[in-house]
Amino acid sequence: MKKIMLIFFLIADCAYGQQHPISFATKTEFAEVSRQLKSNELLSTSFENIKNEVDPYLNVDVDVPYPKDPAGGYTHDQHKFLYNLMFNAGLMYQLTGEVKYADLVKNILLKYAKLNPLLKNHPQATSASPGRLFWQALNDANWLVYAGLAYDLVNEHINIEDKKIIAEKTFAPIVNYFVVDQKQWFNLIHNHAVWATAGVGIVGIACDNDNYLQMALYGTEKDGKSGYIANLNGLFSPDGYYNEGPYYTRYALLPFYLFANAINHVKPELKIFEYRNRILKKALDVALQLTNTNGEFFSFNDALKDKTYQSNEVVNAIDFAWQAYGFDSSYLPVCKAQNRVVLCKGGADISAALNNLKSKNLYYPYTSAEFTDGADGMKGGVSVLRSGNSDNLSTLIYKYSSHGLSHGHYDKLNIQFYDKGYEILQDYGAVRYINIEQKWGGRYLPETNSYAQQTIAHNTITVDEKSHYNGIEKISEQNHATKMYGDINGKNLKVMAAMDDHAYSNVKLLRTVYMITIPGTEKTIVVDIFKTQSDSIHQYDLPFNFLGTVMSTNFKYHYNSNLSTLGNSNGYQYLWVEASTEKVSPFTQFTFLNHKSFYTISSLSSDSTQVFFTRTGANDSNFNLRRDPSYILRATNKNQTFINVIEPHGSFNPVSEIAVNSKSSIIAIERIQDDNELTEVRIKCKEGVIQIIQKNNDVKSEYIKVISDSGIGKQLRWSGSYYVSFNDQKLQ
Amino acid sequence: MKKIMLIFFLIADCAYGQQHPISFATKTEFAEVSRQLKSNELLSTSFENIKNEVDPYLNVDVDVPYPKDPAGGYTHDQHKFLYNLMFNAGLMYQLTGEVKYADLVKNILLKYAKLNPLLKNHPQATSASPGRLFWQALNDANWLVYAGLAYDLVNEHINIEDKKIIAEKTFAPIVNYFVVDQKQWFNLIHNHAVWATAGVGIVGIACDNDNYLQMALYGTEKDGKSGYIANLNGLFSPDGYYNEGPYYTRYALLPFYLFANAINHVKPELKIFEYRNRILKKALDVALQLTNTNGEFFSFNDALKDKTYQSNEVVNAIDFAWQAYGFDSSYLPVCKAQNRVVLCKGGADISAALNNLKSKNLYYPYTSAEFTDGADGMKGGVSVLRSGNSDNLSTLIYKYSSHGLSHGHYDKLNIQFYDKGYEILQDYGAVRYINIEQKWGGRYLPETNSYAQQTIAHNTITVDEKSHYNGIEKISEQNHATKMYGDINGKNLKVMAAMDDHAYSNVKLLRTVYMITIPGTEKTIVVDIFKTQSDSIHQYDLPFNFLGTVMSTNFKYHYNSNLSTLGNSNGYQYLWVEASTEKVSPFTQFTFLNHKSFYTISSLSSDSTQVFFTRTGANDSNFNLRRDPSYILRATNKNQTFINVIEPHGSFNPVSEIAVNSKSSIIAIERIQDDNELTEVRIKCKEGVIQIIQKNNDVKSEYIKVISDSGIGKQLRWSGSYYVSFNDQKLQ
Repeated sequence: MKKIMLIFFLIADCAYGQQHPISFATKTEFAEVSRQLKSNELLSTSFENIKNEVDPYLNVDVDVPYPKDPAGGYTHDQHKFLYNLMFNAGLMYQLTGEVKYADLVKNILLKYAKLNPLLKNHPQATSASPGRLFWQALNDANWLVYAGLAYDLVNEHINIEDKKIIAEKTFAPIVNYFVVDQKQWFNLIHNHAVWATAGVGIVGIACDNDNYLQMALYGTEKDGKSGYIANLNGLFSPDGYYNEGPYYTRYALLPFYLFANAINHVKPELKIFEYRNRILKKALDVALQLTNTNGEFFSFNDALKDKTYQSNEVVNAIDFAWQAYGFDSSYLPVCKAQNRVVLCKGGADISAALNNLKSKNLYYPYTSAEFTDGADGMKGGVSVLRSGNSDNLSTLIYKYSSHGLSHGHYDKLNIQFYDKGYEILQDYGAVRYINIEQKWGGRYLPETNSYAQQTIAHNTITVDEKSHYNGIEKISEQNHATKMYGDINGKNLKVMAAMDDHAYSNVKLLRTVYMITIPGTEKTIVVDIFKTQSDSIHQYDLPFNFLGTVMSTNFKYHYNSNLSTLGNSNGYQYLWVEASTEKVSPFTQFTFLNHKSFYTISSLSSDSTQVFFTRTGANDSNFNLRRDPSYILRATNKNQTFINVIEPHGSFNPVSEIAVNSKSSIIAIERIQDDNELTEVRIKCKEGVIQIIQKNNDVKSEYIKVISDSGIGKQLRWSGSYYVSFNDQKLQ
Repeated sequence: MKKIMLIFFLIADCAYGQQHPISFATKTEFAEVSRQLKSNELLSTSFENIKNEVDPYLNVDVDVPYPKDPAGGYTHDQHKFLYNLMFNAGLMYQLTGEVKYADLVKNILLKYAKLNPLLKNHPQATSASPGRLFWQALNDANWLVYAGLAYDLVNEHINIEDKKIIAEKTFAPIVNYFVVDQKQWFNLIHNHAVWATAGVGIVGIACDNDNYLQMALYGTEKDGKSGYIANLNGLFSPDGYYNEGPYYTRYALLPFYLFANAINHVKPELKIFEYRNRILKKALDVALQLTNTNGEFFSFNDALKDKTYQSNEVVNAIDFAWQAYGFDSSYLPVCKAQNRVVLCKGGADISAALNNLKSKNLYYPYTSAEFTDGADGMKGGVSVLRSGNSDNLSTLIYKYSSHGLSHGHYDKLNIQFYDKGYEILQDYGAVRYINIEQKWGGRYLPETNSYAQQTIAHNTITVDEKSHYNGIEKISEQNHATKMYGDINGKNLKVMAAMDDHAYSNVKLLRTVYMITIPGTEKTIVVDIFKTQSDSIHQYDLPFNFLGTVMSTNFKYHYNSNLSTLGNSNGYQYLWVEASTEKVSPFTQFTFLNHKSFYTISSLSSDSTQVFFTRTGANDSNFNLRRDPSYILRATNKNQTFINVIEPHGSFNPVSEIAVNSKSSIIAIERIQDDNELTEVRIKCKEGVIQIIQKNNDVKSEYIKVISDSGIGKQLRWSGSYYVSFNDQKLQ
């Protein structure tokens, strides 16, 4: 079978003859970039930086080693270096016209022609889809994309004999490995498959092999059930929300955009950038909305926290988006922070736009936004509630989405809170030191699964010390949480309610979050009403994974003189219990300091509530985890309601040594009514009284009427799923 | 007695009539500042900021409350606010000529005239020198300084009756409290006394009370054994090193400079700025050299880490230094970072200099420097060894000084290491959340003494789990470590050797640090040879209080499944033992990641060595401590030699996901000879072989000759206390 396929491919080779270069840019486009090099500073710097990277390797006999090492090791890094070197040299060839650059690319490609036919699965392969040049096939796909682009860039300079060698010996072994041996993987709906199809497609264009291109677009069976287009359909919701979350959106954007750009050159009739109502533009815009003001992608799912929109992938996505869709001022603050452009027409135009930039706006225009999940937009979603602006932005993320493939967490109804540029209530993200060889070859560390993905690592409820869906990905993948109601467009009030009755077979979870800006002030608080409904008694643990230093509590706790863990499994085994309480009074307050601001979590729970201060690090036998704290409320009950107020307040300046408003302004939380139908809460704070009434069932009937005592002796008439007032004035 | 003194003071009042204003600036100087307001942007912004702070309080009946609260509480903050308000309003009066500002000052001073005569010791006083307006007298001294300056600024606007009231009722109660009730404290050689004398002196000038001024300058007995001048003599070494260390230098600089400026106006014949070979300028320059590249003062002694040279105290010191000593380009990067100036002639001149600033140099010109300690320069010292520059500066601090008064630590022969702008091997500093009321009123927390000051919190040897001098300040104060030899001016080699034989009665400690830049490279390592000599067997613990994440070790360790502490007292009770070893092979390597760089500590110890990974937090019942790690080598021996190589290497970029040189280049450490006379070490690294020979005794004979086998079969002839070579080429 393999042999038959191989012959088929060889025949298909050279089936159509395209003008080169074409996959990255055309001659005309390169001429335009060259013309602008003189006048556009950022373009010129970007060009010079690449040239300076390439030049030292001209006339150098570079090493193309037999693959041996894991990520972070020499052969891994060298092959990664080489595909970048080839691509950059190809760019230099087109922009300078100097053949020495083309020769560099050719020589390396010919060295690979000797190596690639010899390759077996990589000796360090641990993945289900092993690589050949690298430990996992994903990295081989990266190699294909850039080596393919490089070959296309220098194609015109290569004689017919060498072309044949490069097609048959350099590329065919890897392509065939993908579409035959790793066919199932190649045909996935998954970011790996986006890379794999982009690689095969770009090599197809570079080698004039339409068969490669067709398989790339429509899957090995060319039936459209897999391949690049199927991934465009399957990985994004209609809003452009990417199934695996923002950290991986960033990663997937690169092959999506690189290949879309190539497709747009060779098959303009596909109108790929217009596809699915400009899904590629939406995907980029969603990815940017899902960043913190410092450019870091929100840390949910398997995210690495330091990753920002300055990364190479986003530079490429924005520059090709600009080329495809035209001027978009919202990108300029990001482009400015990126401080480099791609050497394509989009990059040149951005560089020109930055030359003329008058605005000093440092921030992407962050807004509140609601994103549905699932290809059909029917698998829950993620909402981002924002208040304030610029340096003073408060952001609450509420996640009621589906699982998010292999990089998803068991985090139904999780919230995260960012404020003033910092993460305040965190998602741990992933446990990984990417590409650091000492840390398990730079791969995801085992604690990603055993701790970071588990429910207890999140700011949501764990029932009976078991993770959602018992931590079984297959089952979690089949389910999702559900939005009940919400409106995130109010000036003083933003609301989102969602529920989940699949994560646990016998417990229904309902969580409603309110972001309230007190009228006439800049004070914004989050009110979080988290209800459980069950026929039987359960232990409910609700952590607040705060980042900061404990300032004070309104209750006494016992500080442990020997540390033991909070539990034995499902992530609990990684938590030292630093301090804990017996049952506390139901109204608890806990204040912490993060950077220069104070935060208080004021909670009204039930009589049975206990509090734990924990810290990650137990059983961390390789020092893989950070030592991060958590504040955990535990109640044992059938139906439990946790009412929490998350309140940023005051400031501390360690240089001038001034602390302002270091104490909470929440005086009391009262539960007026709380049953399966309705919850009514009054929050007394220094500024006045906040009243919240919410519907807990029958959420599909959008408008209802309820009569309630408004607290000042008169009848209150309202319609909708919720009612919120401040000092008896309705908020909206 | 009190009554007699009081009468004496009242008679002395108005003994001489001075033109006002004079203590902060003269009419002529203010005219010059006013003239420059238009042309100098920074001066103008600084003026506007102060005006905007003052204006809202014009025509407001400000509250002058009866003192009640600790630091961070209302009455504390209000009195602090008021003295600043008065001072700033006084400045606005002089610079705008508008009497409304003078009225504001007068009204507040007259309110104090009603309050101050009623005051008893502050109800929250816990200090040995309680305050009246504040919990400690130090804050009352701050009040005196600024209220005194403010009064002088508006003096001309106040009628003779009010002048009498202000002198007798507002100021005299506080001054008398200082010079009578707190006389012993006022007469100390200590930063508190600098503030107290500055306050009394400035009030003396403002009230035309020469008696006050004389006591301020020469002590209550006017014999010069105490008072401001005695503090100028006693608190600085001849080099300008301030006895309490850089964090407190910063604090003391303010009253030193404010009062010097006032003295220079009223008694120019004292030539106070020239005093002791310009000791005030030296003090400022030393303080700046003792900062990290981010402006943070080195964290030894009771330092708070976030404190930078942007603090108000340093703004004042630099601006008055500039006024007194003239243009100094080295200050400009600091002034630029400060982004504000004092509204004096120096500030105006700096603002003008910044207008014309061409250089883009962002850094103070940091150099290697050796500072003696003690008024006579004979009490050991502190050396700073630096290599590289700008963003790539490596800094080793070696402390062999005296104790440093009440804010000193038991840290003989301690080292700290900063690299690329970050603290790598830390001194914990102090345990304090200054002015945050919830944290014990913002005072020093008990863990400052029980942990942070203890020897185990430092990167130096603790013998038998006891701190230096058994943790007794009085005894530590009487002793100091001693420099043996050193030269910190070499290009490739900087050396400093010191010893201590008082910290422990039965053990002598010798430590020599070598900062070596490998010729032809930018690679800099620190070699640290730490020897103990004793007649009896002891347990020697040498911690490296590293900041970062454990990457790898070349030895196996046991990770503890229940945590207990390293010990029971002297700071050990705060350390959880996260992981430990039995005896390890003498050559251990430990690599960690700090921000974007890797660091390896390679150690050659003895066969008995054990390793502990600890973390602060045990017995931290109020969550006062950070959760910081330590890597502790423990050997039990008579004479012990720890040879450590501290090596920054490689880099990690989490955005581009590239890790470079994540592994140490140290291959082996060999001990060729090691006895009381001589230690010879060879360090084999990828780059070549480093050879170190050092003298361990007879250090007073500066030049010696030794014949040694250089390792390549020929005889080596050298003179001096040490010899260091790289690949057989002598380093210097």
